[in-house]
Amino acid sequence: MLSSIEWNKGKPKILDQLLLPHKTAYVVSANYKETGEAIRSMKIRGAPAIGVAAAFAMAQAASASKAKSAAALERDLLKAAAFLKATRPTAVNLAWAVDHMLGVLKKMVYAKLPRIVQGLTEAALELKEEDARQCAAIGRAGAELIRDGDRVLTHCNTGALATAGIGTALGAITTAWDSGKKISVWVDETRPYLQGARLTAFELAHAKIPHSLITDSTAALLMSKKMVDLVIVGADRITARGDVANKIGTYGLAILAKEHGIPFYVAAPLSSVDFAMKDGSEIPIEERPATEVLNVNGKPIAPAGTKALHYGFDVTPHRYISAIITESGVFRAPFENSMKSAII
Amino acid sequence: MLSSIEWNKGKPKILDQLLLPHKTAYVVSANYKETGEAIRSMKIRGAPAIGVAAAFAMAQAASASKAKSAAALERDLLKAAAFLKATRPTAVNLAWAVDHMLGVLKKMVYAKLPRIVQGLTEAALELKEEDARQCAAIGRAGAELIRDGDRVLTHCNTGALATAGIGTALGAITTAWDSGKKISVWVDETRPYLQGARLTAFELAHAKIPHSLITDSTAALLMSKKMVDLVIVGADRITARGDVANKIGTYGLAILAKEHGIPFYVAAPLSSVDFAMKDGSEIPIEERPATEVLNVNGKPIAPAGTKALHYGFDVTPHRYISAIITESGVFRAPFENSMKSAII
Repeated sequence: MLSSIEWNKGKPKILDQLLLPHKTAYVVSANYKETGEAIRSMKIRGAPAIGVAAAFAMAQAASASKAKSAAALERDLLKAAAFLKATRPTAVNLAWAVDHMLGVLKKMVYAKLPRIVQGLTEAALELKEEDARQCAAIGRAGAELIRDGDRVLTHCNTGALATAGIGTALGAITTAWDSGKKISVWVDETRPYLQGARLTAFELAHAKIPHSLITDSTAALLMSKKMVDLVIVGADRITARGDVANKIGTYGLAILAKEHGIPFYVAAPLSSVDFAMKDGSEIPIEERPATEVLNVNGKPIAPAGTKALHYGFDVTPHRYISAIITESGVFRAPFENSMKSAII
Repeated sequence: MLSSIEWNKGKPKILDQLLLPHKTAYVVSANYKETGEAIRSMKIRGAPAIGVAAAFAMAQAASASKAKSAAALERDLLKAAAFLKATRPTAVNLAWAVDHMLGVLKKMVYAKLPRIVQGLTEAALELKEEDARQCAAIGRAGAELIRDGDRVLTHCNTGALATAGIGTALGAITTAWDSGKKISVWVDETRPYLQGARLTAFELAHAKIPHSLITDSTAALLMSKKMVDLVIVGADRITARGDVANKIGTYGLAILAKEHGIPFYVAAPLSSVDFAMKDGSEIPIEERPATEVLNVNGKPIAPAGTKALHYGFDVTPHRYISAIITESGVFRAPFENSMKSAII
């Protein structure tokens, strides 16, 4: 299993996923801004993974700070926090991880400065470990919803490359496979970044799980031909009532699944749930550069001068979602009550 | 307006659409087999255009035949017909055009051989002219369904490049624009062949109609944000009751349109209607090489060894279709009665 991010002598060592599957190369980011840029440019992506990367970036910021007091350090970290939160607005895990690091600072404010810096590094590493534990638990819970022989359709990449563990939706798939269930996977290529083609196919090949790549617009046909038993995807943010922001294309898939009577599952850690937000329409949807749609493999796919609209995510209302799979188990509608009970 | 196909000194001159939009180059096919290969490899594509190309190929086959009798010529043409029909199975226009040419031969069987060959060439050219007239009529009928200010979403390419005239669905769009309606177009890129990105964006830029490229999986989000007023697509085959085979992705779009209460229109000549077939599930769906999904711009998008499933078309049941626009006007459900009345 390739690791998306490691802590290497005080710096994050990040697998450059823009180069996968053709090249496996790591970048070491010298400071928190470089780490933030790696998040923005999607060298590292996936809601849980960018949460870990942001926590590492906060530890870097603390370590590089020239502050002589805890108050001055907090000012530096608030600046880093604002920079990091702006890199990618949709996934709540990133903001959550950054705020978690600020909370750690708050708790240690009376400690000596070197101890605070050390504490922040430890907290970031603990957050990474915690993500791996959550992935394992999500995988176990999700695997129970997958039956022997199921043909599972998934979108984007939600595996080891998207997290610091085995993944979320893809973790459920690999856990089901490892438990002996003979399953197969339809891999949505996931335009424009092709995370399905580049990353999910890569991870499934590594796990030796049978899979076949399809274009994103093939799902409806396969559903109508009864070639899909369930859909499972990840999440970048889940509202209190269970509306889910996830990679563009998820919402359409959910409608298609409902139309064909196919279960539609979302797998994510509870840290992806934004209990402060109820309606999915409030989730900020990242608009990314048009060039990312207009070029594939470094060459244009459209005439010069063509405009493109590139939303990175869409929002699936809770009514299309059969269940939300978390490290605390599987939640079903009404999600607001069921999920809240897990955190209190 | 670029012409997809011309008759040039006894041979079809075909615009190689695989090279668009980066390069505008024509190929002259020396014989009917080369014309058939141009159809198979999608140098020329679009149901009406490949119908014309197949008619031209039949004229080529007649012209090259060494037959000394009408019966021998018919044997040669039946061989050519079988070859041509097998190049692409889904669009009915191709088989329709080939059968039309065989019918012309039947009617001329007592004429002298050179006159028969000449008659077949004339019939092919007439079929091309007829397609252009039908496109113009479809365009006028379709334009009436498009209101000033509409944001129209379309899939694949259904313009001049897909026909021998102004196109079908795209012809309705350009006709609406030419009549002074200020519209704009969402162009589905249409994986895997990217006909939307490469061809529709190209035609819309030429017509100076505002448009923006989107990935195929963006449509649902735009619909939920009320940014789409109607969807209009072409057809490769329409059954008697109005089930529509069209480019992969059409069926999903139709479900999404219905879910959001957005009209979903299909524009095609009546020659695309296969009155002998009722249920869309009977339409043969072409499975094309996986390599066409696995490579973009000449480079792989997935790990070496990845399998892919590549259906070229899907089938949209009639219940998702608001209206079918033909050269004989606009038909609404029940399509079986309304369309049949147009041909008797």
